[in-house]
Amino acid sequence: MKRKITLKQIARELDVSISTVSKALRNSPEISEDTKQKVQAFAKLYNYKPNNIALSLKNRKTNTIGIIIPEIVHHFFSKVIRGVELVANKRGYNVIVGLSNESFSKEVINMEMLANGSIDGFILSISKETLQLQDYHHFNETMDQGMPVVMFDRVVSDIKCDKVIVNDFGGAKRAVEKLISNNCKQIALITTKDYVSVGKLRTQGYMEALKESGFELKSSLILKLDDRLDYEVHLEALEKEIEQLFKSNTAIDGVFAVNELYALSAMKVARKLGLEIPRDVQVIGFTDGVLSKHSTPSLSTVSQHAQIMGERAADLLINKLETVSTEAEEEYQTIVIETDLIERESTK
Amino acid sequence: MKRKITLKQIARELDVSISTVSKALRNSPEISEDTKQKVQAFAKLYNYKPNNIALSLKNRKTNTIGIIIPEIVHHFFSKVIRGVELVANKRGYNVIVGLSNESFSKEVINMEMLANGSIDGFILSISKETLQLQDYHHFNETMDQGMPVVMFDRVVSDIKCDKVIVNDFGGAKRAVEKLISNNCKQIALITTKDYVSVGKLRTQGYMEALKESGFELKSSLILKLDDRLDYEVHLEALEKEIEQLFKSNTAIDGVFAVNELYALSAMKVARKLGLEIPRDVQVIGFTDGVLSKHSTPSLSTVSQHAQIMGERAADLLINKLETVSTEAEEEYQTIVIETDLIERESTK
Repeated sequence: MKRKITLKQIARELDVSISTVSKALRNSPEISEDTKQKVQAFAKLYNYKPNNIALSLKNRKTNTIGIIIPEIVHHFFSKVIRGVELVANKRGYNVIVGLSNESFSKEVINMEMLANGSIDGFILSISKETLQLQDYHHFNETMDQGMPVVMFDRVVSDIKCDKVIVNDFGGAKRAVEKLISNNCKQIALITTKDYVSVGKLRTQGYMEALKESGFELKSSLILKLDDRLDYEVHLEALEKEIEQLFKSNTAIDGVFAVNELYALSAMKVARKLGLEIPRDVQVIGFTDGVLSKHSTPSLSTVSQHAQIMGERAADLLINKLETVSTEAEEEYQTIVIETDLIERESTK
Repeated sequence: MKRKITLKQIARELDVSISTVSKALRNSPEISEDTKQKVQAFAKLYNYKPNNIALSLKNRKTNTIGIIIPEIVHHFFSKVIRGVELVANKRGYNVIVGLSNESFSKEVINMEMLANGSIDGFILSISKETLQLQDYHHFNETMDQGMPVVMFDRVVSDIKCDKVIVNDFGGAKRAVEKLISNNCKQIALITTKDYVSVGKLRTQGYMEALKESGFELKSSLILKLDDRLDYEVHLEALEKEIEQLFKSNTAIDGVFAVNELYALSAMKVARKLGLEIPRDVQVIGFTDGVLSKHSTPSLSTVSQHAQIMGERAADLLINKLETVSTEAEEEYQTIVIETDLIERESTK
């Protein structure tokens, strides 16, 4: 193994201040791209680790679980955290949370920071940017260093680790089957672009249900939204897209939306166009958040059991932490959480 | 300063296993109350600190801010975190989040864990249990050790630190004044018990507005709920209490509720009793969360500007971290965020 290099040595070698090195490694906007590239390349070459003292703590048990989630203002993720907390507390573990804000570099920084002696293992859901870049080195490096990782919801099949996922395909299929059995003939789908794995699977579930019932697939009935735009802030943009969908398909009598906000917006737009719910249009969403329950009419939805996902993930991680592996090859599990269809007022 | 004692020494002295000591210090339910008390008293006497190596890191700058919040499934707190993140990222800091789950002991454990070399300073909102116990030793100890703390929203005047609060009194007063100017004669208040400082201040704002307008204060119009019960889970219990309020005061034509859930439930109960909103009853809530915007009718509410609170708190903390104090006496600031009244469909 190469000898460890310090911030000070990097600064001396490149003739810049220590503060510049530190900021460049943190990708600070204060530092020029040129300097950042130089510092980062040098640090990589000499295998720089942010904190050498902390590394000595790595073999110490902290009894703390690190959670990395993409977004905090999101009922689903906060329910998962509640589930992790519940099991962690029961089993004598503490929980700390880091946020990637859907950014690849923030995900990397957070993992490095927490892996440096603060925690025993990770429970995480991958950021959208990481999924787009398909750069998973930080997950693999963390596991190579002996720190277990459990992924939930947004996972990648290439990465070998324990996983907890929702049956997105099956949940979506069942929702659309419900609309079909409720006599809907023109069922629209409001979904995300395909790089988000869960959006893709839900889209496939929609298509499979239609296919099995002998329906013709019409691409004009599928609205794929770029969810890098925060629609909670840009509600009008969202409603405009949905209004377009309804106007180009005036016979729409059913809508399946891959999240709560899309479903609620569909109900709002339908009402605005003089359609009554569920008489003229029936709507089913995905995710049982606060909005579904409190909306008028209340929203029928596919429940993901977010809290149970958190509980299962915590059990998987703690089991791994407390078992001494004797096998040469580690074994990994994927737990699939089945969804429930919660029928409320937006369906007949 | 006393010599540091290790887990092992405590275990030997008390003739128990190391694991028992560790669990007792974490207040694990696996350990008997008797043993816990013995271990905790001994550890306190010998000034035990969970991790001696980590203490050596304490003077190292981590460029990380620790946030401790009482509850994660809460739009207000997640918006505050978003505000902290925004400023922290701009200024080159990272953020990690610990959860107290409204529990005193979890708040203490989380602070100890993070103060042990993981972060440079805290931004926090006090747990309900801590407020009830009025035990603030952990905040004072943290600050005595030279780690700055900024408190937001739920603060205590006894503690000397930087604070960011909302003008709860003024916001509540303005909301009730609005109901009065909209011709409401019998204005009910749905609030929490007084130990939550923000609930108390909002109650005072309600009373002051009525007093100034020459209204008589009727205790029968004030419903004080014990919010240790999670009403999001026990919605029916909440609605029953509110229904009782409406039934004992059939002339109610205005409702001011100190949070979103209470306000929405009031609208639901009113509708159930055949009252139309805003024609028969006008309703104003507090906190501009997702429910207010998406409910039918949409809810008029007092906006707390949660994200701005987070931004101000982060600026206060980072300013303190980056300034070398030359004064003998530290100075502390309290920033008061003014509220806005957002008028939607639930008022005339």
